[in-house]
Amino acid sequence: MSGLSTTPSPATTGGVATAKGFRAAGISAGIKPTRKLDLALVVSDAPATAAAMFTLNKVQAAPVLVSKEHLAKSGGVVRALVVNSGCANACTGDIGMADARTMADETAKLVGCPTEQVLVASTGVIGVNLPMDTLKSGIPQAFDALSIAHGSQAARAIMTTDPFPKEACASIVVGGKTVTVGGMAKGSGMIGPDMAPSATMLAFVTTDAAVSQPLLHRALTDVVDDTFNAISVDGDTSTNDTVVVMANGASGATIGEAEYSQFVKALYDVCLELALGIVRGGEGATKLVTVTVSGAASTAEARKTAKAIATSLLVKTAIHGGDPNWGRLLAVAGRAGVAFDAARAKVTIGSTVLFADGRPYDDRAPQAAEYLKGTDVAVGVDLGAGDRSSTVWTCDLSAEYVKINAEYRT
Amino acid sequence: MSGLSTTPSPATTGGVATAKGFRAAGISAGIKPTRKLDLALVVSDAPATAAAMFTLNKVQAAPVLVSKEHLAKSGGVVRALVVNSGCANACTGDIGMADARTMADETAKLVGCPTEQVLVASTGVIGVNLPMDTLKSGIPQAFDALSIAHGSQAARAIMTTDPFPKEACASIVVGGKTVTVGGMAKGSGMIGPDMAPSATMLAFVTTDAAVSQPLLHRALTDVVDDTFNAISVDGDTSTNDTVVVMANGASGATIGEAEYSQFVKALYDVCLELALGIVRGGEGATKLVTVTVSGAASTAEARKTAKAIATSLLVKTAIHGGDPNWGRLLAVAGRAGVAFDAARAKVTIGSTVLFADGRPYDDRAPQAAEYLKGTDVAVGVDLGAGDRSSTVWTCDLSAEYVKINAEYRT
Repeated sequence: MSGLSTTPSPATTGGVATAKGFRAAGISAGIKPTRKLDLALVVSDAPATAAAMFTLNKVQAAPVLVSKEHLAKSGGVVRALVVNSGCANACTGDIGMADARTMADETAKLVGCPTEQVLVASTGVIGVNLPMDTLKSGIPQAFDALSIAHGSQAARAIMTTDPFPKEACASIVVGGKTVTVGGMAKGSGMIGPDMAPSATMLAFVTTDAAVSQPLLHRALTDVVDDTFNAISVDGDTSTNDTVVVMANGASGATIGEAEYSQFVKALYDVCLELALGIVRGGEGATKLVTVTVSGAASTAEARKTAKAIATSLLVKTAIHGGDPNWGRLLAVAGRAGVAFDAARAKVTIGSTVLFADGRPYDDRAPQAAEYLKGTDVAVGVDLGAGDRSSTVWTCDLSAEYVKINAEYRT
Repeated sequence: MSGLSTTPSPATTGGVATAKGFRAAGISAGIKPTRKLDLALVVSDAPATAAAMFTLNKVQAAPVLVSKEHLAKSGGVVRALVVNSGCANACTGDIGMADARTMADETAKLVGCPTEQVLVASTGVIGVNLPMDTLKSGIPQAFDALSIAHGSQAARAIMTTDPFPKEACASIVVGGKTVTVGGMAKGSGMIGPDMAPSATMLAFVTTDAAVSQPLLHRALTDVVDDTFNAISVDGDTSTNDTVVVMANGASGATIGEAEYSQFVKALYDVCLELALGIVRGGEGATKLVTVTVSGAASTAEARKTAKAIATSLLVKTAIHGGDPNWGRLLAVAGRAGVAFDAARAKVTIGSTVLFADGRPYDDRAPQAAEYLKGTDVAVGVDLGAGDRSSTVWTCDLSAEYVKINAEYRT
């Protein structure tokens, strides 16, 4: 995906119900004690092809296992997504599996489709059983609230510690027809870059293009690595991560090989905006940090080094404090397991080179410190060992992060 | 080292100058603007055999490079260590190399030994040159202050953000003669478990046993993995890590194969006490956390999982908040890259089992929460996949850690 703009500029505003033929709802079923929105439903008027990626965590939540089963059984045809926040339904044993199946069953009855055409997702506290009576009365309420105008409510209903909802939308014209790609995501903590996808992250993208299941899967695979897998909040990953893309063809436009790159660009823009939204809304985050490692011998080495920097507490706290501590960037690069010669390396903060030719340029520290006062900052390490590069995004680490995570359940 | 007590009980109190024939000093040379102690010297009356391990970071500080050179040139014979805090002399180019050599030269002149019999270490801010005039006037002052009574001053002089000095000592009787092993260490942040040794960690151990260089190297290698390499404060590692053991034979006792296990046990006790001191004094730490992963298919998998848990921000913040959040322990085990079946896993906090048989035991959460109020806490994950285990130590993550590291240079 190199060469694409890293700043997506969606043609329209919107979310998961903006593409034609999709409706969404977000209601308060009563799972969260706060009575905030906690149940989201997304329904396609017609059967949609779907591609999905799930957490690589060895411990997978019941909704992840059930959704995988359903996709396999339906051959990648999906009519609805049902998602709750406030309870992850993870590490909940046989009861949890039965509960996830019940969520799909209840939704399928209302939608009028086979159970396997419903995908399920949950996010919240691990190890607690779902309050099924609450859910069973919530699902019909959500169904009644389905509307093309309720994408934003759905985006709010999947939030946990997220400070704001994440929605994004882009449109392209294919054969004279407007194709819309829109989506929503949640994720704030437990966001790490080593999984596919990574995070206590849920992302649901819809499009009214007609896309064959294999091509849709290819598009998602092409995009995830440089979007959802290129972000990190705390380096942790969850038992519930789920990314789903649904394509229902309601626009009348079909994506084939000829239209593929145009479609992937739109999907990339939407996924990147959602992913950066997750980082901006990272627990306790005050800054979005773009980490670019260049001059690497391979893209894999560039990525490995960038991830090490993006997950280093010392780097993240220094940036939080506005300290242009280039030494920490270089030291972390040094422990990333990638061979390079420090004498050829270069460290930049914004556009200021602070280390090069084997020596510091500390007279430039004040301008770098001034730059770090911004809320969108970039740091770079050039390893001087090749011409490959990789960019990942993270946020700073604040005392607020500790507060949120020390007090999450109490 | 399995089977050894994890709670060292040194026979004596003491530090780096407790073994016969060693003297130490710690003075304020003026490198730290605060005028705190910042220059340490350790001298053996007679040439000592020495074994050392250094950071595996690709970026190595000048004193690390110079000490490696000296050990190679001297064949592992050492008379003195000279150590400064307040400046790491890392990423300082040719000037830094010359400065590290000068530190050794000035010390060698006073001690009356070849330069290569002096090892050098530095700790503090990266990328700043040493104030050589200050150091050159400090070294003779430190030499004049050398005493068998000044081990504690030396331990204080190597501190950076450490809240307290770390000293440990043990003695054994070999052939009717008392052998003493004593040491000092520093390290508070930049402590990660992936290097050999790991951390902005300096540790210097002396013994009055006579030990051949190969046997001393073997002993250090045997001990480091379960002590200095089994601790983590923030998962980061430094450019300056150094562990040195010196053996001068002043006790009249010689360690051969027959005495090896007895000697290694004493060395282990001293190194573990120093290592746990580093964790207890970790930046912002309020709790020492013992992480044991058992039921693994291999020791390497047990260690890998334990390290993932010990470096997880979500685990460390939960423990800081006294939250018996066993779900985070299991979720992190799941992303450690080790195969296991969650249905066979068991999660314990203290002696309380909170997850087993594929389901939570949340009624026990209150007693686990009560237990987590302590300052020495243990958490365990049994993977149910074998009979191997590994223990590592970490500390909790507090808002104070963020504060210390966001403000370190400013």
